[in-house]
Amino acid sequence: MSTRSYAILGTGAIGGFYGAKLQQLGLDVHFLLNSDYEQVCRQGLLIESPTGSFTLFPVQAYHDPQKMPACDVVIIALKTTQNHLLPQLLPPVLKEDGVVIVLQNGLGIEPQVAEIVNSKRIIGGMCFICSNKVGKGHIRHLDYGMITIGEYQENYQPIKITPRIQKIAEDFNHAGIPTELSENLLLARWKKLVWNIPYNGLSVVLNAKTDELMNSPDSRILVEEIMREVVNAAKGCDCIIPEQFIQKMLNHTEKMTPYLTSMKLDYDRKRPLEIEAIIGNPLRMATEKGVDLPHIAMLYRQLKFLDFKNRSPDS
Amino acid sequence: MSTRSYAILGTGAIGGFYGAKLQQLGLDVHFLLNSDYEQVCRQGLLIESPTGSFTLFPVQAYHDPQKMPACDVVIIALKTTQNHLLPQLLPPVLKEDGVVIVLQNGLGIEPQVAEIVNSKRIIGGMCFICSNKVGKGHIRHLDYGMITIGEYQENYQPIKITPRIQKIAEDFNHAGIPTELSENLLLARWKKLVWNIPYNGLSVVLNAKTDELMNSPDSRILVEEIMREVVNAAKGCDCIIPEQFIQKMLNHTEKMTPYLTSMKLDYDRKRPLEIEAIIGNPLRMATEKGVDLPHIAMLYRQLKFLDFKNRSPDS
Repeated sequence: MSTRSYAILGTGAIGGFYGAKLQQLGLDVHFLLNSDYEQVCRQGLLIESPTGSFTLFPVQAYHDPQKMPACDVVIIALKTTQNHLLPQLLPPVLKEDGVVIVLQNGLGIEPQVAEIVNSKRIIGGMCFICSNKVGKGHIRHLDYGMITIGEYQENYQPIKITPRIQKIAEDFNHAGIPTELSENLLLARWKKLVWNIPYNGLSVVLNAKTDELMNSPDSRILVEEIMREVVNAAKGCDCIIPEQFIQKMLNHTEKMTPYLTSMKLDYDRKRPLEIEAIIGNPLRMATEKGVDLPHIAMLYRQLKFLDFKNRSPDS
Repeated sequence: MSTRSYAILGTGAIGGFYGAKLQQLGLDVHFLLNSDYEQVCRQGLLIESPTGSFTLFPVQAYHDPQKMPACDVVIIALKTTQNHLLPQLLPPVLKEDGVVIVLQNGLGIEPQVAEIVNSKRIIGGMCFICSNKVGKGHIRHLDYGMITIGEYQENYQPIKITPRIQKIAEDFNHAGIPTELSENLLLARWKKLVWNIPYNGLSVVLNAKTDELMNSPDSRILVEEIMREVVNAAKGCDCIIPEQFIQKMLNHTEKMTPYLTSMKLDYDRKRPLEIEAIIGNPLRMATEKGVDLPHIAMLYRQLKFLDFKNRSPDS
């Protein structure tokens, strides 16, 4: 039985769900909360899930990272738009020999975290999950749940599987969270972007769910063209994604239950969009390598316009 | 004093305004109307304009082109999305030696009209006007009003100014409609598209007026990049638009009163958008010449998606 302690920074749809699963397994989990703090102290965390609903209670809930114990594993599950808070949140909760899992969308976040903690302490993670926070301390898990993690090295250099991520993956797998390991974090992140860039971006610009994007020949072609640009971008960064992966993502999405992307949910709630992590950073990384990405560049500017307008006082 | 008779096909913001000006000059003008027919028969056409408001009464109004006299000059002022009606509307109202002025947006309409009447009878026209139909038989002219006309030859070959368009321009100028003549209709149309493609397209996709598009650095760059693609597209079709023209259009728009484009007005009223005339036809013409237009191609697909969705029963 693992004795690793976990800190969850951001107890929302992702952090709340995975943290609750780890605590259910009997691990020592500490949750940082903001607006839901009082509710979760009193009533615990309610997790609805097709794999079994439950209320986690009591919860080791905190409102102030200074009051949290330093932990072996810190999971960053904030929206990337909150990452400006990390210099305050992260150092107090990380043991000297602990690790940070950046369980966030997009690309280029690990180098930012490496400005706060030593890059040797950083692991990257991606989750493939449909999960929403539907109320205070109330998380609705809809589908999927797999995680991929990989060690981060400076400039996303590939690196062999280490014993420490194997042990973390064991915790996750025991907790019922299917977890894969990757020797190439950058490739794993680019692969996820093949889905994330077109669907997140177009769902906001075209005000559409995934099924609408798949059913119209015009948006379907756009999705595919943008996917092709992501594959080219990855290639420019020495990450080879096979051409068939595009068709696989299209087929997969066609079979999915109609889905509002996380970016569209944020947009509808007038929250800041994760434009930089999901689109801006990948765009810049590939552009620096000389790859031309006109569709993604246009999508990026459209989203920045819409995000700004969406959160302007008179919108 | 000219004795030319005019038929106006489409008595809306454009056809109603120009037709009324011509009749005010004393010309014999016949107006085809649809939903406003009864109102205009009873009350005439009300033209509000900063250059002088007036009610045109009586109006030679028709509901059926078969009842109209054949005229010397037929002005097509329908939305291009109504052009499928032209085979019924056009032949009855055109004298054997008469001419048709295609006073419509975009590109590639004259070749379609040439399938209905001999191409030697066709003149192309563009108007630079802010004018809206605000109620039945009620047109509000806001600003500008200039027209450019040029003879059409097969494949938009340039052709010298003819006496007949000089005479028509005289009628227009006498009626207070500043009119310029062009020896190169294709170039004139491409020049107008430098404005029309970015502002019409982005106003719909980004739900924005012209001032919003100019004030955000992101949309402003998009406008400029799309303008640059239009200039390249024109070049591929042997129409040279000087680089400074882009800056001129940007400066001009910056000084304009905040403006809802015609495509955005159509979108808000859930009417079909002039996507093919303004974007699809130019895109295809330049693509056939080997020009790559990624931004315009993406805009085209986004608009087709939004137009379809906007007019779906459950939207």
